[in-house]
Amino acid sequence: MAYVILNKTTIINYLNTINSVTSYFGEHELEVDEIGDGNLNYVYIIKSKTDPQKALILKQAVPYLRCVGEEYPLSKERMTYEIRALQLFTSTTSAYIPKLYDVNETMSTVIMQFLGEHLIMRKGMIAQITYPDFADHISTFLAQNLFKTSSLHLNSTEKRQLIDRFNQNTELCKLTEDFVFTFAFMEHETNDVSSGPEVGSEISSEISPEVMSLFSDLAFKQGVLGLKYKFMTQTDALLHGDLHTGSIMLNQDETFVIDPEFAFVGPYGFDIGALIGNLIMSYASHVAVNSAQAYLAWILQTIEDVLVLTQDKFLNLWQEQKESALITEGFINETSLTLYKNEFMLNMLKDTVGFAGCKMARRMFGIAGVADIREIEDDVQKEKAINITLKIAKLFVKNYQNITSVKDVMQLIEENGH
Amino acid sequence: MAYVILNKTTIINYLNTINSVTSYFGEHELEVDEIGDGNLNYVYIIKSKTDPQKALILKQAVPYLRCVGEEYPLSKERMTYEIRALQLFTSTTSAYIPKLYDVNETMSTVIMQFLGEHLIMRKGMIAQITYPDFADHISTFLAQNLFKTSSLHLNSTEKRQLIDRFNQNTELCKLTEDFVFTFAFMEHETNDVSSGPEVGSEISSEISPEVMSLFSDLAFKQGVLGLKYKFMTQTDALLHGDLHTGSIMLNQDETFVIDPEFAFVGPYGFDIGALIGNLIMSYASHVAVNSAQAYLAWILQTIEDVLVLTQDKFLNLWQEQKESALITEGFINETSLTLYKNEFMLNMLKDTVGFAGCKMARRMFGIAGVADIREIEDDVQKEKAINITLKIAKLFVKNYQNITSVKDVMQLIEENGH
Repeated sequence: MAYVILNKTTIINYLNTINSVTSYFGEHELEVDEIGDGNLNYVYIIKSKTDPQKALILKQAVPYLRCVGEEYPLSKERMTYEIRALQLFTSTTSAYIPKLYDVNETMSTVIMQFLGEHLIMRKGMIAQITYPDFADHISTFLAQNLFKTSSLHLNSTEKRQLIDRFNQNTELCKLTEDFVFTFAFMEHETNDVSSGPEVGSEISSEISPEVMSLFSDLAFKQGVLGLKYKFMTQTDALLHGDLHTGSIMLNQDETFVIDPEFAFVGPYGFDIGALIGNLIMSYASHVAVNSAQAYLAWILQTIEDVLVLTQDKFLNLWQEQKESALITEGFINETSLTLYKNEFMLNMLKDTVGFAGCKMARRMFGIAGVADIREIEDDVQKEKAINITLKIAKLFVKNYQNITSVKDVMQLIEENGH
Repeated sequence: MAYVILNKTTIINYLNTINSVTSYFGEHELEVDEIGDGNLNYVYIIKSKTDPQKALILKQAVPYLRCVGEEYPLSKERMTYEIRALQLFTSTTSAYIPKLYDVNETMSTVIMQFLGEHLIMRKGMIAQITYPDFADHISTFLAQNLFKTSSLHLNSTEKRQLIDRFNQNTELCKLTEDFVFTFAFMEHETNDVSSGPEVGSEISSEISPEVMSLFSDLAFKQGVLGLKYKFMTQTDALLHGDLHTGSIMLNQDETFVIDPEFAFVGPYGFDIGALIGNLIMSYASHVAVNSAQAYLAWILQTIEDVLVLTQDKFLNLWQEQKESALITEGFINETSLTLYKNEFMLNMLKDTVGFAGCKMARRMFGIAGVADIREIEDDVQKEKAINITLKIAKLFVKNYQNITSVKDVMQLIEENGH
């Protein structure tokens, strides 16, 4: 069928045309509710009236930004890339992707498992919930996907085909180029900070001198430019593209990655960095509001574990891979390959740190703010959280090329995280 | 029309269907000759019988490697990428591309200016001809094309469209991955060296211990692997892809770049490095055969000029560019941008040196050899040329990351070029 925007009334008929959905629900009567928190898309929950445990999610992209309206056009083809990424991630690490019941590039829809017993990770962390298995889960997701979509696993032809399938996700890549690497660090209408004295007090009270200082920090901006260039020109692997703690739903047993509409083939460190950056912002918020030491310790341990485990698992996959676009069996011996791998993983870590810094710094403006910090009620505490974040972010962006180990990274966080 | 392989007889009818060709020749009667030196393709010269000054070249790709035959299939779509590259280069620097009269992706043909008064540069250099304007010409070609197809000039959408137009040139990229970065440095059937004692004396006499030592040089192989990874994953700009001195035709006044069938979006340093590497091999050959000091000095000066002028011209273009995918006006001040540009140009130089090293080292096997060295008759002199080339190549591949200036590069060449 041709693309039409679905609504609560038309969804039921649409669902009746899809075998995997009708066989899931059987003869149950269905009810449809809209979930209001989709920023970009319409998200509906479809439930059985007789068995509320039976539920699926339908997500549809519309040709504009849902949270703003039709005056902010955004191509609905973004769902094409989300669909392709969900399918690809499912093929490599199905345990961490909601089960897919139907995808339709023409309708820009995906129908998938309803995660009724899982929380958005950002909310969980604000509520000081620990997730002991999270680092293990997400590092498997990261290592599997980064490795298996790279030139260390694919052959030359497969890698080029992968690039072809995601290369045209231009609009969303451009959003990242603009909002993560550019507008946040200059005078721009999209920021919550304006150049003149007419700034309303309510807004300007949120802008610390530290934030303002980004505008004139030359070494920081030089670093951001280098990282933006990497983002645009380094085709390591298929990325989720927006892997913050709001793109993760989890509980004590399970971890799911959602919303990969920003997917593209880019630098390894961008996904890992997005995640680490968001964990550090959570850490900064908990330091600022004097949360329990045990929770702070869990966050730090999680950051370290994500970095170390992703690296270890990536290397394990590499160890098993004898042939790929990069490696031809018999080309190089183990000793020499190990040296190359060390250099390779260190570059990945450096990029991770740099991208984490960009992701953190750009969140310090109200419009892009993270709830972890934005929702701190006490102004002094909030400013403290912002200052900690910015201190670490700046150090990351300015010094990422000098990082030599995960220990370096942890030291930077701990020494500046207060 | 559908694809058919042309021959001397059918070409005339084919040409009669093309307006730009009929209007070029007018009513003249034509004669067609095959030029035998095409390795990959059929190349014909079409001449007016009455005015031999009037001539065009027709080049057609066939679905196999012409110099080997149908048993070595190679997709004729390689001509598609050659056509696209010729058109793009013409749009940026028409002075250095033969005038195009007709291109046809379906027929895999290109009809272009006949360069009757120009010599293949490799042959010119073997004959010790100096080309005083060459460095100026080729640096303009390099700077214009590398800059104008990069994220420093194009916007984000244009850059992704460019990648789309060349991304599927898989087969020829794979040839480079295999033959420049892999097979030449390991035991492989495509090399002129075999592992056993059954190597014929005529062949083994060409293999110096220096060449053999590449197989076990761990640091060299580690460097090659890193450069191969860059080749596969760094999408800086549209490259010619095979810019050696055999892809350049010139005389004292004009310089033309031909044969860009290996074109793809890759690292800046690959084209510059290919050229520099080939100039160094010419230098090594002339050192070995005791050519005049003046000629040696001209080659060294040309290498230095190509490096310096390409850099200067690239920076001049950048200076005039206020907006691009990377740069948003107002993001960064001049001081800070200059620091970033210095870092950027240094990375380009480092990559250039690394790729030059790979290109040189891999040519040391008979099958891939360059005429400059292969055609040296005296065995001792030939071995000297090989040894100089390899010494420099190894230093380049192992140390390219430590290069800090063009002066460093020239010093490496001069100190080891004897």
